[in-house]
Parts: sequence; structure tokens; C-alpha cells
Amino acid sequence: MNEMKTYKIDEIGSWERFYRANFLNALSGFKPLNLIATVDQHGVSNLGLFSNIVHLGADPALIGFINRPREAAPHTLANIEGGRFYTINHVHPDMLERAHQCSAKYPDGVSEFTSTGLTEQWIDGLPVPYVRESLVRYAMELVHVNPIPLNGTYFVIGRVLQVQVSPSLVGSDGFIDISRAESLVSTGLDAYGQVSALARYRYAKPDKPVERIPWTS
Amino acid sequence: MNEMKTYKIDEIGSWERFYRANFLNALSGFKPLNLIATVDQHGVSNLGLFSNIVHLGADPALIGFINRPREAAPHTLANIEGGRFYTINHVHPDMLERAHQCSAKYPDGVSEFTSTGLTEQWIDGLPVPYVRESLVRYAMELVHVNPIPLNGTYFVIGRVLQVQVSPSLVGSDGFIDISRAESLVSTGLDAYGQVSALARYRYAKPDKPVERIPWTS
Repeated sequence: MNEMKTYKIDEIGSWERFYRANFLNALSGFKPLNLIATVDQHGVSNLGLFSNIVHLGADPALIGFINRPREAAPHTLANIEGGRFYTINHVHPDMLERAHQCSAKYPDGVSEFTSTGLTEQWIDGLPVPYVRESLVRYAMELVHVNPIPLNGTYFVIGRVLQVQVSPSLVGSDGFIDISRAESLVSTGLDAYGQVSALARYRYAKPDKPVERIPWTS
Repeated sequence: MNEMKTYKIDEIGSWERFYRANFLNALSGFKPLNLIATVDQHGVSNLGLFSNIVHLGADPALIGFINRPREAAPHTLANIEGGRFYTINHVHPDMLERAHQCSAKYPDGVSEFTSTGLTEQWIDGLPVPYVRESLVRYAMELVHVNPIPLNGTYFVIGRVLQVQVSPSLVGSDGFIDISRAESLVSTGLDAYGQVSALARYRYAKPDKPVERIPWTS
């Protein structure tokens, strides 16, 4: 690796738009790649590709995601505001091309399920479908949409209603081995990465050395 | 992979606290592993380990992160509110054990730099240090702290001031190859993964098939 170089924001701001977007989108690091499934008021399903997703807490079980400005990404947000329910579905390599295609701007009334060949999986009592191909997926109910006036994005917070995963991926300590599910990450605007298990460590304490624990138990 | 099982939130809520936390923390997927460096009012530096980080936009260049409740994670947030500046530093395998140790609860007045052996790197005109070992790092100025009353967490939004990265990692299209920097991800409460480049695709359009593009250019 060569020497580090400092790029100041005045310089970055002067760059061509796509060059700048590629550069700045890499900064936040590798992010979780997920499909969010919703249904509109006419019953048409929708799939959107999202990777700005955060864990907010386990009790209550809250997860948030960033929705781009309405004019750039209207359907998922409108459907969640209208129907309040959505599913979040991890993406693995066999479904990556179809998932990427969900980022195309299909017109109103066209389902990305139909267009890309991903499969709706309906569950009794849930008004939105899962993505059948996904190996780690969960259903959410909207709690609050927080507009971010700085740039027109939205921070959407929901609570977990139910989770679907193979019990074979759940360890004796509750840890879900999403590396075995091959859950992917994204970086930049258009790049995807695959994750291999590196290490787990015991809860860190000031007076204790770092101690590895087994990945699965 | 065995059959999917449905875990309802009523059942999940009845589980033992750590089992439940391991399970629910995996849902949000693999997340970017970063150290946030700050300085308190007495000049003592602080390093905290964060992975709930989102890209909010490239123009203006905004990045957000989730800070846990004040009683659980007081220092980073207080230092940012006091001094307004912070750096975000990607973590790679050679610095992982030291980074993990930064999640231990050190008392006020003790710097995680000193305690873990990570190195402060000071830059002219920047009132907070970078982590010298990090290969992708950037300096931020606070824009807004959004409290999330639902569970006492905070969504902290800042703007990018400058970026430090080796020009050898920056492609001709502005894409920063963070897989070559070996930027890590985290999952669950205590698990870390390594990422390999899988694919980049051209911007998706409704009437075009998915098309691969080179990882680097």
C-alpha cells in the first residue's frame, strides 16, 4: 500500500458527479445487502434493494434503514407508510443478479418480483410477502418515519414481528451464522462482496486480554 | 440448509437476554466495522467501536451512525457534542484484536489508544486524531444529533471534512477498493468477518439484462 493521501472536501466537491459518488459511497464501509418487500394499495408487490440498515436495539427489537429521497426511491416508502408492514430479506450469491436488477426504476404497477424472477412467499396472517429465495428474513411493522431535512432522505424505524431462518443456522447461544447463509455485503454504488468468518471474541473487559471463542457452538 | 422455521416476536421476547441479543443482532446483516476517535474537554483521546453506520448522501457528503444509550456508551457522544469533530477509521485484520478491546468499558480519563496500543495520528488543523493503523479513514464534523426516544439511542449525523486513503486504492472511476484495504465487517455482538470482492454490475435499467463490470478500473 502506498502512502496515504489527504483529500479535502473542497477538492472532493469539485469532482465529476459519478466519480465523487463512487468515492464517497465507499467510505461507510461494507454494508448489509437486503431486499425490502412491500405491497401497494392495489395489491401490487414491490422489491427494493437496500444496504443502509442498522440495528437499533434488541428490547424492543428495532431495526432502521435509510430510504433515499422520495423522487429517487418512491415505492418502498409509500407502501410502508400506507400499509405499515414490510419484510427484510438477506441476499446470497445465487440471487444477486436478480437482486441487483431490483434497483432498476420500474414504473408504478410493475412488481420487481415478476420482472426479475424472484419469488413471493406468503405466510398466513402477514400482509406482505417474503422473498422465497432468501435464507435469513424477517417481517417488520413500521414504528416511525424520521425525515432528514438535510438532504431529503428518511430514517425508517420498525419493530421485528417474526423471523424466518433455518434452525440449523442458530447456535446454542442464539448466534445466527449468516456467513453460512452467505449473506452478502455491498460497497460503493454497484459492488458486492462475500463474507467469510474471521473470529469471535469474548465480551471485552478493561483488565482482561482479548480471548477468542468458537464461531459456532 | 434445513427447512425455514418461523420465530414470532412473542417467543423471541421470552428468551434469555443474551440468547435473544445474539439472535436479534444478526438480523441486520454484516455491518461495517469502524473505530470512532474523539477527544474530551481535557484533551484525553477516546476510541469506540461502531458498526451501525450509514451513507446518507454524497452532496452534501453526510454519514450517520447509531450511538447506544448514554449510560451504555457515554464517551464518544459526549465528546462529539462538546468538540463537534471526530474521525471514522476502517478496521483491518491486523488491528482487529486491539479494535475489539476498544469495546471494553474503560473509565473516564483513560484513552483506548494507550490501553490497546493503537496509535494516534495527528494532522495539522484537525482537533481529533486518526488511527494510524487504519487504511481508510475520514474526518467528520457534527451536523445533528437525533435522539431516538423509543429506546434511548441516538442517530448522529455528520459531514465529511476530509478523507485519507492510499491513491493506489482509488480507481479511475473514483471507486475505493476497500476489499484490498481488507476493511472488516461485524455480525451479532462479537463476531467479525472478512470480505472478498464478488462482482460489480452496471447501473440497472428495467429493459436491460444485468451486466458485469470490472472490479477495478
